Amino acid sequence: MASRCDVIFIALPHGLSGAKVNEALLSETKVIDLGADFRFKDAAVYEQWYETAHENKELLKEAVYGLTEINRGAVAGARLVANPGCYTTCSILALYPLLKEGVLEHQSIVVDAKSGVSGAGRGPDLGTHFCEADESVKAYKVASHRHTPEIEEQLSLAAGQKLQLIFTPHLIPMNRGILATCYGKPKYKIKTAELQDLYRQYYGGEYFIRLCRDGVFPETKWVKASNFCDIAAFSDERTSTVIVVSALDNLGKGAAGQAVQNMNVLFGLDEKTGLDAVPVFPA
Amino acid sequence: MASRCDVIFIALPHGLSGAKVNEALLSETKVIDLGADFRFKDAAVYEQWYETAHENKELLKEAVYGLTEINRGAVAGARLVANPGCYTTCSILALYPLLKEGVLEHQSIVVDAKSGVSGAGRGPDLGTHFCEADESVKAYKVASHRHTPEIEEQLSLAAGQKLQLIFTPHLIPMNRGILATCYGKPKYKIKTAELQDLYRQYYGGEYFIRLCRDGVFPETKWVKASNFCDIAAFSDERTSTVIVVSALDNLGKGAAGQAVQNMNVLFGLDEKTGLDAVPVFPA
Amino acid sequence: MASRCDVIFIALPHGLSGAKVNEALLSETKVIDLGADFRFKDAAVYEQWYETAHENKELLKEAVYGLTEINRGAVAGARLVANPGCYTTCSILALYPLLKEGVLEHQSIVVDAKSGVSGAGRGPDLGTHFCEADESVKAYKVASHRHTPEIEEQLSLAAGQKLQLIFTPHLIPMNRGILATCYGKPKYKIKTAELQDLYRQYYGGEYFIRLCRDGVFPETKWVKASNFCDIAAFSDERTSTVIVVSALDNLGKGAAGQAVQNMNVLFGLDEKTGLDAVPVFPA
Amino acid sequence: MASRCDVIFIALPHGLSGAKVNEALLSETKVIDLGADFRFKDAAVYEQWYETAHENKELLKEAVYGLTEINRGAVAGARLVANPGCYTTCSILALYPLLKEGVLEHQSIVVDAKSGVSGAGRGPDLGTHFCEADESVKAYKVASHRHTPEIEEQLSLAAGQKLQLIFTPHLIPMNRGILATCYGKPKYKIKTAELQDLYRQYYGGEYFIRLCRDGVFPETKWVKASNFCDIAAFSDERTSTVIVVSALDNLGKGAAGQAVQNMNVLFGLDEKTGLDAVPVFPA
Repeated sequence: MASRCDVIFIALPHGLSGAKVNEALLSETKVIDLGADFRFKDAAVYEQWYETAHENKELLKEAVYGLTEINRGAVAGARLVANPGCYTTCSILALYPLLKEGVLEHQSIVVDAKSGVSGAGRGPDLGTHFCEADESVKAYKVASHRHTPEIEEQLSLAAGQKLQLIFTPHLIPMNRGILATCYGKPKYKIKTAELQDLYRQYYGGEYFIRLCRDGVFPETKWVKASNFCDIAAFSDERTSTVIVVSALDNLGKGAAGQAVQNMNVLFGLDEKTGLDAVPVFPA
Repeated sequence: MASRCDVIFIALPHGLSGAKVNEALLSETKVIDLGADFRFKDAAVYEQWYETAHENKELLKEAVYGLTEINRGAVAGARLVANPGCYTTCSILALYPLLKEGVLEHQSIVVDAKSGVSGAGRGPDLGTHFCEADESVKAYKVASHRHTPEIEEQLSLAAGQKLQLIFTPHLIPMNRGILATCYGKPKYKIKTAELQDLYRQYYGGEYFIRLCRDGVFPETKWVKASNFCDIAAFSDERTSTVIVVSALDNLGKGAAGQAVQNMNVLFGLDEKTGLDAVPVFPA
Repeated sequence: MASRCDVIFIALPHGLSGAKVNEALLSETKVIDLGADFRFKDAAVYEQWYETAHENKELLKEAVYGLTEINRGAVAGARLVANPGCYTTCSILALYPLLKEGVLEHQSIVVDAKSGVSGAGRGPDLGTHFCEADESVKAYKVASHRHTPEIEEQLSLAAGQKLQLIFTPHLIPMNRGILATCYGKPKYKIKTAELQDLYRQYYGGEYFIRLCRDGVFPETKWVKASNFCDIAAFSDERTSTVIVVSALDNLGKGAAGQAVQNMNVLFGLDEKTGLDAVPVFPA
Repeated sequence: MASRCDVIFIALPHGLSGAKVNEALLSETKVIDLGADFRFKDAAVYEQWYETAHENKELLKEAVYGLTEINRGAVAGARLVANPGCYTTCSILALYPLLKEGVLEHQSIVVDAKSGVSGAGRGPDLGTHFCEADESVKAYKVASHRHTPEIEEQLSLAAGQKLQLIFTPHLIPMNRGILATCYGKPKYKIKTAELQDLYRQYYGGEYFIRLCRDGVFPETKWVKASNFCDIAAFSDERTSTVIVVSALDNLGKGAAGQAVQNMNVLFGLDEKTGLDAVPVFPA
């Protein structure tokens, strides 16, 4: 079948695409994998957090981490794109400029993330039962969520140095959307306006990243059913804290939307092809 | 009217009870004030964050901050109880043992709080319109919410030293409930079991504080329509971070429930009087 | 075990309690069955709608249909109470006075009912997944829901004549609560005030039935987490239609609450024992 | 300004467009009015239900009721289109074939409709406050909603005879969507398959009307953020009742979507122009 496809999108539980994607397949077609199997450069990290052996380590080096805005050049020439997930896209886009530019101390980065229920998948279980998820909020997988090492690896690459951070996901009684509230200590006094300049420098030309006006912070409804990621950076000089809030649709930019965006890059299409829907609010 | 009441509950916008409560009133009856006017020892902090002059500074010294579990003794003998609000009760109860025992560095405490819409009051405005609040999450009043200095003052008293922290409230599409996810850097290596011992030592005898079993974190639905506050403390040794998650009902322990609890203490009644309703889930 | 219990509450899938409840058991203890097995006088109707043979037909005659307000006397002396479900309690209480008094034509009664998701039970399936049930409304089991024949049998008993009606349940994106909007054609011109008098005559002395003031119609939040059933009757003289709207909590008066109420009647206790919680709103 | 516009969309409170639209305006441009002022042929009915004098009765005759599927020909040649609202579009599309073909008795038609909160408009008031609307369902404006006479007038035109019906709107805790569950007595025995044939005959060629497969009934999430109206017709032979369930998005086909559809007809454009968004689910 591969020989008749320009590209194959794979969305399988972790461990399965690692076994299926190989040289033979990649010689016939391009692959965009929405699972976790090819997202890590360091197979040991994958094996530790996913508690399973990686069956295809040699391809990890070739696979391109498909966070388009950060790896666009590499995506363009890739055979195998490892499409990032929802929490990771939202968190990395929020913090990338700060780590790349060395603004933050590495020891006290906190990502407090909030996700709608569709992030848990469509399979029915007690946790996604309406009466369990509705009208309540909780933290889950505290200090143990598998997106943690993925965020760490990408931000370490940006920082040029291995770093660790604390990532806490929360379940919110809504269908879709992710909000990441990120905290860090700046290495030096920095003003909000300087942060905003920095983000404009990195993302000013990006269609799918919208930087909020001064004083405005993202709401997940503003990105619903779209491929946008909204970001606001703020420096609280009183407590010497940098706060970055980012929002995206976990089913859009946090999954299928970004996969389509990567496909567009792979084939030299306009990056907005198939992604020009305006956000739907209220929804 | 005061002479015919044993106690008066006041629930007014800030600035109004400061003007109304005076020696004449307090010589006739006890007062439990649910507003902010008497919550601060330092009038200057109040005046800065509430942007209004305090009209009754001399009573600030006498007023007792009515976080029952922490100030029970003082509440018992008080004439004027300043009843804390929702975010503050949830945040202070979560962090108090850590500051009192000197576990945390003072420089990097983060409180990331999530509140249901009833926290915004009953007055209709665009922000509480169903179609605005439903199916979305946002941060608001970033680094500027008025509960911040109140949390700081109480934790500073606990720490015996002035401290500042970052507090970020979020609006959650649900009716009621507050979840506070608190982060801090421990001064020394500490295990989760040691944290749990510490919290048991502080709260083990408290009826309205329920410490979660190991591995379990609070959900706001578990405390709905009750006066309970559920707390879980966790040490992430990998990143040297202490995480404490607490949950309460903002209309219960975070407001009216605690006011009744304080009344019970004031009059030597069983503290559970009028507060024995079990949480309502689902609701 | 039966010999050591004053009463056994049974909540099993249909078909199971029919097999378990027998003379031996009833000679030792009283039984309140929350399932459907003993709710019908006519076993053939049960067998047709539940598509299963009834294993215990001889007990059907003895079993008392536990709609307390209607069968209080019989409940008091019963050994076996068949506790009605949520839709049935709500619909029968709404229409009973009209059928008992012969107000309505029998040919055009419509019950359009709306239920929260907890009515579907706690077992996870796709239909109760948050993302399926949230932000949508649908009719289901149109003209085929098993509560239909139960409503029909009870109203036929009231009318002294076999009648059929149309019952349409709808799934509402909320946790709990049932609203039944009932329509019928009056046999003669009747005013709203006359209807209200009729309902006061039937329910004026009932603690758990609250008749709405003129011009007010029930909302399910007003009965949440309580054993109340709120009812409003209205005559639309323009179209010659009687409309009765009723609301209850499907987990309260529509299930466990009424079971406790029946227990209180069985043992001569105050009917409100264990049921004095005030409704929780917002929740 | 009118001379520079091809068409003007008016969305004003009732009473205002009646005063503004006149011969001078219509000689310059076409008008699509989303308000109620030009929806009635009979000014007396408007004046009675809206409790205000109609200031522009002479234009009522010319105005075309913009339910596109029913009045497409007239819309094409119109200067003034009275765009129907949400409840009316949903109810009329559901019942039109039955009245046009004389299937139903006229005396017992019931429309039980359920609407999301956006139907109440964006102006904040207590009824649309999140904590009031969330987790509850209620009937409102029972037998007195202003969409009633509009539905009656259009169905009377279809039936060739004046008819009245009962219309009960309900508020559902969701953002958008309307579901109308319609009940009527057939004049003769009719099977579901015959009803389905009838609806196919009327709507089979309509892009924006989707007839459900046998046994399937509409859910509002299936039409969200689209211009579709889904319909299922069912004959319950047991009780001699015809049930038709229809669903649309009150902000799409029930308002702005249909206005765009009418504009497309007015200007001979493809009717789907600007309306090709797929429904958004979950949202």
